[in-house]
This record gives sequence, structure tokens and C-alpha cells, in this order.
Amino acid sequence: MKRFTVALLCLAGLISLSAQAQMKPEDAIKLRQSAMKLIGYNFGSIGAMVNDKKPYNKDEAIRNATNIEGLVSQPWEFFIPGTDKGETKAKADIFKDADKFKAANERLQTEAAKLLQVSKSGDMAALKTQFGATAQACKNCHDNFREK
Amino acid sequence: MKRFTVALLCLAGLISLSAQAQMKPEDAIKLRQSAMKLIGYNFGSIGAMVNDKKPYNKDEAIRNATNIEGLVSQPWEFFIPGTDKGETKAKADIFKDADKFKAANERLQTEAAKLLQVSKSGDMAALKTQFGATAQACKNCHDNFREK
Repeated sequence: MKRFTVALLCLAGLISLSAQAQMKPEDAIKLRQSAMKLIGYNFGSIGAMVNDKKPYNKDEAIRNATNIEGLVSQPWEFFIPGTDKGETKAKADIFKDADKFKAANERLQTEAAKLLQVSKSGDMAALKTQFGATAQACKNCHDNFREK
Repeated sequence: MKRFTVALLCLAGLISLSAQAQMKPEDAIKLRQSAMKLIGYNFGSIGAMVNDKKPYNKDEAIRNATNIEGLVSQPWEFFIPGTDKGETKAKADIFKDADKFKAANERLQTEAAKLLQVSKSGDMAALKTQFGATAQACKNCHDNFREK
């Protein structure tokens, strides 16, 4: 046990949360915002490519889409009760209409999985179309569950 | 083009970065800290399980390890020149000894891949051992490249 306890202590700055049950609302908000920030970065990179704002690079698009696909499953566990207050734009509707929120999350995960698949094809027109569909899934949730 | 431009505008709050070339140092710092925060959360969850701080749940351990494996490739592109200053604990050594930093990053990615593999086995003793090895990979990089 000691070896692991020491390792944990060394990583105390990194490991500040061990279980959702013990999670403070402000930590949950930061964690989901962290996921959203990384999604936004990677999605923005693909957006820049399909909108001719930066050169298309297939490997980069795949990496971005891989990151997005892994990240879009992560924010939701951090929408715990009480986290519609504080430093957040989350609406209380998230907790009032949990089924609709879950459906919106699942739509994003479905579209992100397709985005990853399409990114691997190297078909720019298809990537552009699927980028649009994924953006709509983001927008759908933001329109309903996020303050302007 | 219009459809995508509109979608992008709607997501303007989310998509603030489109290419590393245009990235501000403070944005790069926030992005890598976002990845580290999520890694820390998921790693802490496995740590709590292997250290009997919360009940072992195989599915949760796999989800945590999957998240970690996807996240550990992400922080490095955000260590761009000039980001050893500001709201960061990153040492300038990251840029002075880039090969050593890269090796440390790769060690973490290797250990995280093993952690995911082991998490799927459901073997708690093996998970505990691999958690320790992964923690050492975190610590190795922090000791060398992160201010206390």
C-alpha cells in the first residue's frame, strides 16, 4: 500500500477529486468546462480546415476527430445537482428535463462518432457535411440548455 | 459555405481557437491545463479504487482508463514557446530539453495504454500495479518539468 500512497501524495496537486460523491459543484463545473474547451479547440481546428481558414491536413483532422470522439462522452457526469449556479452558463433546465438533455448529449456522441469515421476517409466534402451536422448537435444542446 | 459559417458563428463561444499558429500563450496554457485536469480526475478515480477509498467498479475503471488513454496524447501540442510564463507551473526546461520532455510524454502514453488494457482484465492486483507505474510516469515529468 505504501508505494501507492506515496505516489498519490506526490500527485496530490493533480489528483484533487476521487469520486463524484465527494465532488464540489465548482470542481464539477471546471471539469466539464475543461472537456468543452478541448472539444472546442479540436472542433475549431476541423472547422478552420473545412472553411479554408487553414490548410487541410488529413492526419490532423483525424487526430482532432479522435480527440473529439473521446471527449464528447466526458462532460455529462459533471452536471451534478447544484451546478447550474456559480461560474457557469448551464441552465436549470438540464435537471428539469434530464431526458431531453441526455438525448441531446447522445446526439452529439453519435455525430462525433460519424465525424471520426468520415475524417479517416479523407473526403473533404463529406467532412464538411459531417462537421455541419456535428455543429448542429452542439448548437441544439447549447440553444436549449446554455445561457447566451 | 454560408451554412457552415452560420454554424461556426453560433458556436463562437465554444470555438475560440482555430490553429496553433494563431494560439495565444494564455489559451495554450488553459487548454493543456484542461487536459491535465481531466486526466487527474480520471486517474484519481482509479487511485481511489485501488486504494480502497471507494468501491471498485470495473466499468467505471475502464471508462476512467479509456478517458486517460485518450487524454494523455493531448496536452503536448499546447506547450508552445512562451508558455513557460504566466499562469503556469511549466518550467523553461521543457523547451531547453525538448527530447527529454518528449520522452517523458511518451512514457506516460505507454503506461496509460497499459492501464487501459489492464483495466479491461478486471484484475485488481494488476490494476493497482499499473496504476503505480502510471503514477510514476506522471511524477517523472512533474519532477523534471513542473515547478513545485
